[in-house]
Amino acid sequence: MSAEFNLIKQYFTRPTAHTDLGIGDDAALIQTSAGHQLAISSDMSVVGTHFFEDAAPYDIGWKSLAVNISDMAAMGAKPRWATLSIALPDINTDWLSAFSAGFFSCANASNVDLIGGDTTRGPLNISVTILGEVPIGKALKRSDAQVGDDIWVSGYLGHAALGLAHLQQKIVLDGDTRDFALSALHQPQPRVSVGLALRELAHSCIDVSDGLLADLSHILKASSSNLNDAVLIGATLQLEKMPCLSALKNRLQESTIQQAILTGGDDYELCFTASPKHRETITILAESLNVNLTRIGETNATGKLTVQFAQQNLNMTALGYDHFA
Amino acid sequence: MSAEFNLIKQYFTRPTAHTDLGIGDDAALIQTSAGHQLAISSDMSVVGTHFFEDAAPYDIGWKSLAVNISDMAAMGAKPRWATLSIALPDINTDWLSAFSAGFFSCANASNVDLIGGDTTRGPLNISVTILGEVPIGKALKRSDAQVGDDIWVSGYLGHAALGLAHLQQKIVLDGDTRDFALSALHQPQPRVSVGLALRELAHSCIDVSDGLLADLSHILKASSSNLNDAVLIGATLQLEKMPCLSALKNRLQESTIQQAILTGGDDYELCFTASPKHRETITILAESLNVNLTRIGETNATGKLTVQFAQQNLNMTALGYDHFA
Repeated sequence: MSAEFNLIKQYFTRPTAHTDLGIGDDAALIQTSAGHQLAISSDMSVVGTHFFEDAAPYDIGWKSLAVNISDMAAMGAKPRWATLSIALPDINTDWLSAFSAGFFSCANASNVDLIGGDTTRGPLNISVTILGEVPIGKALKRSDAQVGDDIWVSGYLGHAALGLAHLQQKIVLDGDTRDFALSALHQPQPRVSVGLALRELAHSCIDVSDGLLADLSHILKASSSNLNDAVLIGATLQLEKMPCLSALKNRLQESTIQQAILTGGDDYELCFTASPKHRETITILAESLNVNLTRIGETNATGKLTVQFAQQNLNMTALGYDHFA
Repeated sequence: MSAEFNLIKQYFTRPTAHTDLGIGDDAALIQTSAGHQLAISSDMSVVGTHFFEDAAPYDIGWKSLAVNISDMAAMGAKPRWATLSIALPDINTDWLSAFSAGFFSCANASNVDLIGGDTTRGPLNISVTILGEVPIGKALKRSDAQVGDDIWVSGYLGHAALGLAHLQQKIVLDGDTRDFALSALHQPQPRVSVGLALRELAHSCIDVSDGLLADLSHILKASSSNLNDAVLIGATLQLEKMPCLSALKNRLQESTIQQAILTGGDDYELCFTASPKHRETITILAESLNVNLTRIGETNATGKLTVQFAQQNLNMTALGYDHFA
C-alpha cells in the first residue's frame, strides 16, 4: 500500500483549482454551484479492447479522460472534476510519467481537477469518472429531438476509424492524411465549448462514440419513447454533406470512406438536432468557435433512419447497420 | 455495443429514488442538497488481487460497492449515488445475475442509486465511484486528530484477515468461527450510521482497509502535517482492549490473532479519535446503534505509534509494521 501512496503522490497529485478537499483522504469534497445539477459519467478503457498493447502512454492518458469529457460536452455540462482508477501490470515509471502527462494535459485543457481514484495491480485498465455542472433543467438529453429538426455534427466524421484501419493495415495512409487520422484516433478533442453553447439551441445531443448511425439512432429511439402520441421519429441523412477532409476522400475508395463516416466510432464529435429556425445562429456559432458545424440531414415522423447518396437511398444492411439495434 | 446496452438494461438498471436522470444518456444528472458538500471516492477491484478467481459473484458484487460506501462512512457522509464500470472476460448470465443481486443488495441497504457506468470486454475488473452528501464543513477528515484524543474502533478487527488466512489454508477454522471470519471477508458491513453520528463527536476518522496500524498511522501523519506548531502526533494502543470475537481468540495462537488485529486489512471498520469528554456519549451511541464501539488507546505528542500488551511495548518491526511507511 505504500507503493500505492507513492504512485498517487508522484504521478497523480497536482494542485486543484475548485476543490474543497482533493486526493489524500477517504473521499474528496466538492461543492456544486448554486442553481446547477451535477452531470456524472464513467468510462472504462481496457488494453486490447480500447487501445493496442503498445499504444503511446501519453495518448492513453489523454484519451481516457477525453472520452469522459466528451460525455460532459454532449450533455451541455461544464466538466469540473474527475477520478481515475487504474490497474497496472507492473510499475513502469516511464510509462506512468507519460500517461500522467497526457491525462493532465487533457485535464488542464478543460480545467478539470483530478480529485481521487485508486491504483492497483492487474491487467492494464483505466476507469475514469467525470463530474460536470449544468444549470438546472438545461442539460442536453438524447430524448428531446422533435420531428422536423435539423441534424448537425461537429468537426469531421470517420477520421478515427480510418486511423484505426491504417494501424490495422487495412488501408495505407501517409503524410498529412495519416497524421489527421491518427490524431483523431489518439487525441480526440472533446467539444466542450460547442456543448455549452448548444444548451439554448439544440433539442437533443449525443457524442459520436459508437458511430454516427448507431448514435443518431439512440437519439431517435430515446426521443420516440419520450413522445406521448407514439410518433416514431426517423431521420434522413445526406451522405454528400458529411464532413470528412477532402485529402482523405480523394485518397480512398468511396465505400471505405462511407463506411468510416457512417459507422466508424471513436470520433467524439457531437451529433445534435435543432429547430431550423436556429440555422443562422448555429452557423455563426461555428465561426466564432472555429469548429465545423455541418447540417447533415433532418428528422421526420417515418420512424426510419435513411441515408441518401446521389439522391438514392443507400442499403443500410449493406452498410453493416442493424436498424435500431 | 448492442450487447453492452442489453447488459446494462438487463442487469444494472433499477428504479432510482433520488436521481434527476439515471442510466441511459451520456451522463446522469443529480442535485446536491442545499448546504451540503459532495463526497466522492473511487475503488477498483481486480480478480487475483482483491478476490479469488472462483469467488462467489454475489459477494464480489456486494463487496465492490461496500468498500466504497465504507469511504463515505469514514467521511461522515451519507452515501447517495454510485457508478459501476465493469470489464468482463465473457458474458456469463448466471455470474451477472448473482453479481448484480449482490451489488443491489448492498446498494439498497444504504439507499444508494446506481446512476451510470460502463461495461466492456476484458479481464475481470470492477470500478465503482461513490457519491455522498455531508453538511458543509462537517466531513470527518483524517487530519484533525488532537493530542489527548481517545482512539476507538467499531465492530471487530482481524476477522477478514483470518477469513483470508483460512481460504489460503494458513489456518483452519470451522463452524461459527469460519462463518464469522468469511462473512467479514466477503460481506463487510459499511458503518454508515456510525459515521453519520460521529460528525459531531469525532475529531478524525478513517476506515480500516489496509490494517489498523497502517490506517491509524495515516491519521497520525495527516494530523501532524495539519498542526502549525510542528507537534508530531503519536498514539499508544492497548492490545488487550482490541475487539475480536473470543471464539476466534480461543481457537488460534496468540501471535496469529495479534497479527490479524493489528495488520490485517479488509475489515472496513471505522477507526476514529475523539475527545475524552465524549466517552459516555459514544458508549450510549454504540448501544443505540447496536454496534460495538471500543476504546483501544489514546493519542499523544510522542510522534510514535506504540502497542502495549501485558504492560510491555510490543516490537513493532516484528509485527511486520514499518513505522509511518
